[in-house]
Amino acid sequence: MAIVRHESNKVYSKVVEANGVVTTAGIIPSDLNGDAKAQTAEVLREIDRLLAICGTDKSKVISATIWLNDIRHREAMNEAWMAWVGGEANAPVRACVEAKLVDPRMLVEIQVVAVK
Amino acid sequence: MAIVRHESNKVYSKVVEANGVVTTAGIIPSDLNGDAKAQTAEVLREIDRLLAICGTDKSKVISATIWLNDIRHREAMNEAWMAWVGGEANAPVRACVEAKLVDPRMLVEIQVVAVK
Amino acid sequence: MAIVRHESNKVYSKVVEANGVVTTAGIIPSDLNGDAKAQTAEVLREIDRLLAICGTDKSKVISATIWLNDIRHREAMNEAWMAWVGGEANAPVRACVEAKLVDPRMLVEIQVVAVK
Repeated sequence: MAIVRHESNKVYSKVVEANGVVTTAGIIPSDLNGDAKAQTAEVLREIDRLLAICGTDKSKVISATIWLNDIRHREAMNEAWMAWVGGEANAPVRACVEAKLVDPRMLVEIQVVAVK
Repeated sequence: MAIVRHESNKVYSKVVEANGVVTTAGIIPSDLNGDAKAQTAEVLREIDRLLAICGTDKSKVISATIWLNDIRHREAMNEAWMAWVGGEANAPVRACVEAKLVDPRMLVEIQVVAVK
Repeated sequence: MAIVRHESNKVYSKVVEANGVVTTAGIIPSDLNGDAKAQTAEVLREIDRLLAICGTDKSKVISATIWLNDIRHREAMNEAWMAWVGGEANAPVRACVEAKLVDPRMLVEIQVVAVK
């Protein structure tokens, strides 16, 4: 089964394709000064970019995992999330839990699985 | 690749099918008064219902992720879990870690991946 | 869709194959006296063993989830991780977050998805 890896370094690839399934890394924001809504929006823009590299898009996302460094940021994250999802016709399954991330200023990390 | 989403709202779908693979959302209990064993049993009944919607069942679950709001609830969760799995012929791979969930009274969240 | 489960007990299987996709359980170290680098190396040796049972290997891993009981162990984990991955041609997508594990002496748990 052919594997296509994109934007790889010695630790991880940003997105990998295999058998028609596209999996992103857990994507974190680069601008750590924003609130949870702004950081979520930035992460989702990066996910859009990675899906496009693989010839797919957010309408084909089947699953998302969201880690918040404080679960109380869920409402703010959800505002950016719902705007991105664009309605129930696109809604993936989702798990959202609290977890400390690499830098305490990172409020959100999101990983998605899509099909092509 | 066709995607079938079930019980969707603007945030997430309860279960999604694509390419013969069925993925549930992270399922949480609705009755928050029970102990970890009771909450786990309720979550697993809901997972049974979602798998049935997709024409599959617990004997075809390949992977499960379990989040406990206190890892010390693992034994109580496992009692309900083992009763549900029904023996080693059905046993999926599993990861079980501690994570704060949306409501502090929620003791367990479970997500599964099955095939059809 | 045929499912092949390996090293199963009443709680979980160590690795499961379905549709050309191989998923390991969240693997934890058995020697809890080592530091995060040593524990990671042990976990990755066990993952090598499980992948081999399924006729695949680390060059075909597409995704990894890493839980650290203290996110400050990330650098030590990464040393063992990079040595195992063996360069960007093999690099899977990855998510790495902090989570309390079953025993406080367990510093790392890793789950991988590979293809055959």
